[in-house]
Amino acid sequence: MKKTLLLLSLVAAPALAGEGKWTPQQVLELSPAWLKAQGLQLPPSKLWDPKRGTGLLAGTVNTGGCSGSFISASGLIITNHHCAFSIIQEHSSPQKDLITDGFLAKRPGDELPGKGSRVQVPRGFKDVTADINGAVPVGADDLARYKAIDRKQKELVAECEKRPATRCQVATFDGGVNYTLVDAVELQDVRLVYAPPRAVGEYGGEEDNWSWPRHTGDFSIIRAYTAPDGSSAPYSEKNVPYKAEFFFPLSTQGVKPGDFVMVLGYPGTTYRTLLAEEMAERQARYYPRVRDALGEAIRLLEAEGEKDPAGKIAVASQLKSLHNVYKNAGGQLEGLQRGRIVEKQRETEASVVAWAQKGGAKWNDALKAREDLLAEQQAASKTFERDFLLGLSGRLARGPALATSVARLSMERAKPDLERRPEYMDRELPRIKDRLEREQKNLFIAADKALLHAFVKRAQALKPDERIAAVDTHFGKTYVEKDVTAKIDSLYAGTKVLTQSERMKMADESPAQLAARKDPLLAFGLDLAKEQAALDDTKDRRQGAASRLRPAWRKAVMAQAGKPVAPDANSTLRVSFAKVQGYAPRDGAVYLPQTTLTGMLQKHSGEEPFNAPAKVRATAEAKKFGPWVDPRLKDVPVDFLSDADTTGGNSGSPTVNGKGELVGVNFDRVWENVANDFGYNPDVARNVNVDVRYLLWQLDQVENADALLRELNIRKSSSPVVKEAR
Amino acid sequence: MKKTLLLLSLVAAPALAGEGKWTPQQVLELSPAWLKAQGLQLPPSKLWDPKRGTGLLAGTVNTGGCSGSFISASGLIITNHHCAFSIIQEHSSPQKDLITDGFLAKRPGDELPGKGSRVQVPRGFKDVTADINGAVPVGADDLARYKAIDRKQKELVAECEKRPATRCQVATFDGGVNYTLVDAVELQDVRLVYAPPRAVGEYGGEEDNWSWPRHTGDFSIIRAYTAPDGSSAPYSEKNVPYKAEFFFPLSTQGVKPGDFVMVLGYPGTTYRTLLAEEMAERQARYYPRVRDALGEAIRLLEAEGEKDPAGKIAVASQLKSLHNVYKNAGGQLEGLQRGRIVEKQRETEASVVAWAQKGGAKWNDALKAREDLLAEQQAASKTFERDFLLGLSGRLARGPALATSVARLSMERAKPDLERRPEYMDRELPRIKDRLEREQKNLFIAADKALLHAFVKRAQALKPDERIAAVDTHFGKTYVEKDVTAKIDSLYAGTKVLTQSERMKMADESPAQLAARKDPLLAFGLDLAKEQAALDDTKDRRQGAASRLRPAWRKAVMAQAGKPVAPDANSTLRVSFAKVQGYAPRDGAVYLPQTTLTGMLQKHSGEEPFNAPAKVRATAEAKKFGPWVDPRLKDVPVDFLSDADTTGGNSGSPTVNGKGELVGVNFDRVWENVANDFGYNPDVARNVNVDVRYLLWQLDQVENADALLRELNIRKSSSPVVKEAR
Repeated sequence: MKKTLLLLSLVAAPALAGEGKWTPQQVLELSPAWLKAQGLQLPPSKLWDPKRGTGLLAGTVNTGGCSGSFISASGLIITNHHCAFSIIQEHSSPQKDLITDGFLAKRPGDELPGKGSRVQVPRGFKDVTADINGAVPVGADDLARYKAIDRKQKELVAECEKRPATRCQVATFDGGVNYTLVDAVELQDVRLVYAPPRAVGEYGGEEDNWSWPRHTGDFSIIRAYTAPDGSSAPYSEKNVPYKAEFFFPLSTQGVKPGDFVMVLGYPGTTYRTLLAEEMAERQARYYPRVRDALGEAIRLLEAEGEKDPAGKIAVASQLKSLHNVYKNAGGQLEGLQRGRIVEKQRETEASVVAWAQKGGAKWNDALKAREDLLAEQQAASKTFERDFLLGLSGRLARGPALATSVARLSMERAKPDLERRPEYMDRELPRIKDRLEREQKNLFIAADKALLHAFVKRAQALKPDERIAAVDTHFGKTYVEKDVTAKIDSLYAGTKVLTQSERMKMADESPAQLAARKDPLLAFGLDLAKEQAALDDTKDRRQGAASRLRPAWRKAVMAQAGKPVAPDANSTLRVSFAKVQGYAPRDGAVYLPQTTLTGMLQKHSGEEPFNAPAKVRATAEAKKFGPWVDPRLKDVPVDFLSDADTTGGNSGSPTVNGKGELVGVNFDRVWENVANDFGYNPDVARNVNVDVRYLLWQLDQVENADALLRELNIRKSSSPVVKEAR
Repeated sequence: MKKTLLLLSLVAAPALAGEGKWTPQQVLELSPAWLKAQGLQLPPSKLWDPKRGTGLLAGTVNTGGCSGSFISASGLIITNHHCAFSIIQEHSSPQKDLITDGFLAKRPGDELPGKGSRVQVPRGFKDVTADINGAVPVGADDLARYKAIDRKQKELVAECEKRPATRCQVATFDGGVNYTLVDAVELQDVRLVYAPPRAVGEYGGEEDNWSWPRHTGDFSIIRAYTAPDGSSAPYSEKNVPYKAEFFFPLSTQGVKPGDFVMVLGYPGTTYRTLLAEEMAERQARYYPRVRDALGEAIRLLEAEGEKDPAGKIAVASQLKSLHNVYKNAGGQLEGLQRGRIVEKQRETEASVVAWAQKGGAKWNDALKAREDLLAEQQAASKTFERDFLLGLSGRLARGPALATSVARLSMERAKPDLERRPEYMDRELPRIKDRLEREQKNLFIAADKALLHAFVKRAQALKPDERIAAVDTHFGKTYVEKDVTAKIDSLYAGTKVLTQSERMKMADESPAQLAARKDPLLAFGLDLAKEQAALDDTKDRRQGAASRLRPAWRKAVMAQAGKPVAPDANSTLRVSFAKVQGYAPRDGAVYLPQTTLTGMLQKHSGEEPFNAPAKVRATAEAKKFGPWVDPRLKDVPVDFLSDADTTGGNSGSPTVNGKGELVGVNFDRVWENVANDFGYNPDVARNVNVDVRYLLWQLDQVENADALLRELNIRKSSSPVVKEAR
């Protein structure tokens, strides 16, 4: 009897406790009993009020690619150190090196405004599914369908953004089961209040990135200001702190293993609604090709860099980004394999198919939609190698990439603004030109030629039915090393694309003017651009088909589940319910969920990235822990793990306890959890948070930030104001 | 009352449970109650019978640099895979690749004899302290003292070895508190019975070396044979298996965390009886200089190797050995710091000094001896940099090293055999000449010149009061890059030392003949050799002083302890009492004490050193565990950790449970435990053992080694013969 009740109360609970980036609305669909059992001490209606369309979750803001959260009624926002880095950098100079030394505003008047820093506070969510679907003309083919949806989205956004200081987006859920217009107020006066030294905020640097155990103090505090009437306004001395209706007071008690936490924020993109076969291609072809092609590019750049120090500097940032993508692809492959993610998706799909087949005619459309999606996938798969390579042509050698960019810009500018691809619309022109200009400093001709050579060789090895015509035309169909070398030398010798002033002129020319230049590299770029444009159209058509098919299939998946299914991330506000816990990275090893100040000291080597600032070390070595010591660890906790379901965009997310108090700030995932974007593996799904007590220790014991602590309602260096029974 | 009793019973127990490489005699001095509490289920007298001077411990044999143990009455011996590698290699050919495929003798007649393989079985231990001390003439100075002791040791060994098939050594305990003549029977007919494929026996290779978690099956089985009358004899078809009085039957139950184990064997050399100041110099100067000089040599060899593939091959083995020493020095430094080993020794010493001062006149000699040892240390310290560098001259550049070797050999050969340094006595000549000949293949002139250049530059930077005269004479006192380059070029251009046939002629010439050659590199080598010889004399004198002083001090240390103190390792039979347990390698991480077959599969990448053989993988993937599954792990255990006190020489040591059954074979220490040689740090003192059940699984499930299992009293693929209550 008791058992049955328990089972019933769990019906509206997710299959795996930590799985799911829930929308605010879904929080109300989950079982309140389950949420309470997890550790939520607030009524779910406090998190989200369906009538008002807002609630505590709205204390979470979007800081432009990152998440953040209000931690006071007076507009204080906590986010990651790396998320506020642009303000820190803007105010740094050799004389006043805030990056190295950190920053603390003694009084509000000292806070440092950030050029271009913006914070979006959620204001409303409106279901526009009917508007979007209604915009598709009857009988439209898939390309027309895509274009109609695209135009309707742009119109809805434009209409929404007519109000002042408003940023809007149309978010697609479950491949198109639902479209939501997300409406946010954009606060334009954002100021830096506190940032630790970089050696705290980035302690461990690249070496510790994606890993555990971590000892990074990846936090900073900013403040949003408004005009005196409370409206959003650009920086002005007359502005006043933003009045936050919802905020997360800092917990002084922190967390211990097993504790319930919520991670709120704006996760970017995940791929869990893909069919198993679509995922399988990523595993079997996409990521291996990334490893292969980018691995080769890395080797070539490094080898050329060894020969030429100036060239080495020119390609340093490209190399860093290549390494990052290369490493990520490795993590995806490891995680997909270890988590058996494709296999599990296949099993889920099979069970939905079996269920739908038993369900009769009602689900015929869903089953057909799945078949059609598979057929689309198979069709796309036929030219996978060619399309992958064509996509790469703009990413590796800068010469053809710049030539292609100039050509593509010219082709798109020939169209009316609303018919262009979004990234070439007039409002993007300044950014495009800025990039075309800045690329000059990244040029390293010897390396560039080697990269282009490698690309041509790969393209010439493609099968007869998937060729890149531009390569065939300019380099011939068969690879002959010396011919390719000679041809590349002549392209680079004859081109003006790599001359900054000429390139900037080209950016304003028509396709005919460009063609008339008879510039050999530009001619190659024009031909590549035409093929890329055609491929983009094909992809648009495929996306149109997917917008028609995927919702039908996903409705079956959701119906079969019989309980809320969290949609893929799409940069909208979400919450994940989690527990503080460690994991086993491999046989024989266990990672504990918390690290300590003493562990931070143990890592200190005096060399970057393990070079803790002297004042931090002195305070830690003297064991001046203050009230921030954890009674179990007998040390100040630094970072902790939880099994929250996060991805890129969750950087700076508030990690909140069951009472709605901030216990940490999310800043990373562990290496074993990179493939989380395809499926949640409870064994290794761990996000990395900095413990609020490490922040408080820094403010209290290291920085003596009395005023700021007072504002945060924390009594300095004594027992905390808020006493909690544990 | 009860508490007092417990305390009393612990009086003769060591301070830290796992600490101490105990001699057989000391086992009887330890509290039997403590041993029982640890988990020893046998009476200690079974381990060692003081009347007979033998016991179960004597089932442990010395296999020449490694340890091993009898596991049957019919001469079967288990040791590490790498300890039997020379026999495996000897019988391998491209057609019959035993290294890759492993080997299993189906019948005794198939067993493979090993050329030069020897096993020493302990036969007797005789206290010769009085003989040694009595040999020192009254009034002898320290050099004379050293020589008298050295000569007496040689005489005792020569007398002892007059019996057939006997190997003897005089072992020094506690710096000379005790000298023991160790007498062993050398068995000369040793045959390979079983070796796993290298990819099992060395799974993880260099990459996993010194580390945890491990998945290495580092075991092999050999058998000792004797003449039919039981006497030691060289290989003969008529020989019969050795009859072992003491052996360790294989446990079929293995171990679980917390279990008691003993590790028996022949640990080589440790340094725990050094004074804190002597250790401090190793930490502050010796290991840092090793890192510095060898790090530079590694960079030079690698850089030159990049330019010349043939040269790269020539220096590959030198480079590997340099890397090994360099890495080890890093581990020593990390461990000394982490374990606060010097500080702890300082504290111990201070407490002994305070205790001795209170003890009155009785300990005046001890206190004076300590002062004198410190003075010796300070005197030696004055020329540390010069002596270190002079010592290195024979290790880096091969040119001067060979020149010095030839010169030194010539100088020593001019003396009567018994007055030479042991390494130049007539019995060593064949080995010296062999090495002089073989060095030819390691020559890489460009790298050699770079190494010599670095050496000269370092020597020329020495302070005025510690100079290397040979460098001053041949290169001048001040470093001028082009002069050094030119001089080195002329040395190498004008020498015949690097011509194999000429060098072999030089090996037979007198110092006068060598000087008459007017060979410039040889002249430099002769001068270096003279300084090295003088330094060796100085070191002998210091050793003479230490043999006089250290015993007096150590007697005070031992008296103050008031309980048995385990002496430093000296290649004699020892036992360590330990527990199976994991450790925390760093903040936030915990290593479990056991690894599994599944973990081995997870590491398999198909590439060396993680390329498990197909038949092993197939059996593991099919989860054919047989009776070798661990009920807690639900998997076949592969390796395990214990906190036994081991060092080099313990490779192949039997790891035995409280009943005297073999539960594993020791094969490594963890990285954090390298500095164990200076002091036992219970937090990280972990040795790595292969679990006997992994061996049994291989023999039973992979190899179907029915005959061998029968001989080992193991019933194949069913419940084990011996049932144990747990």
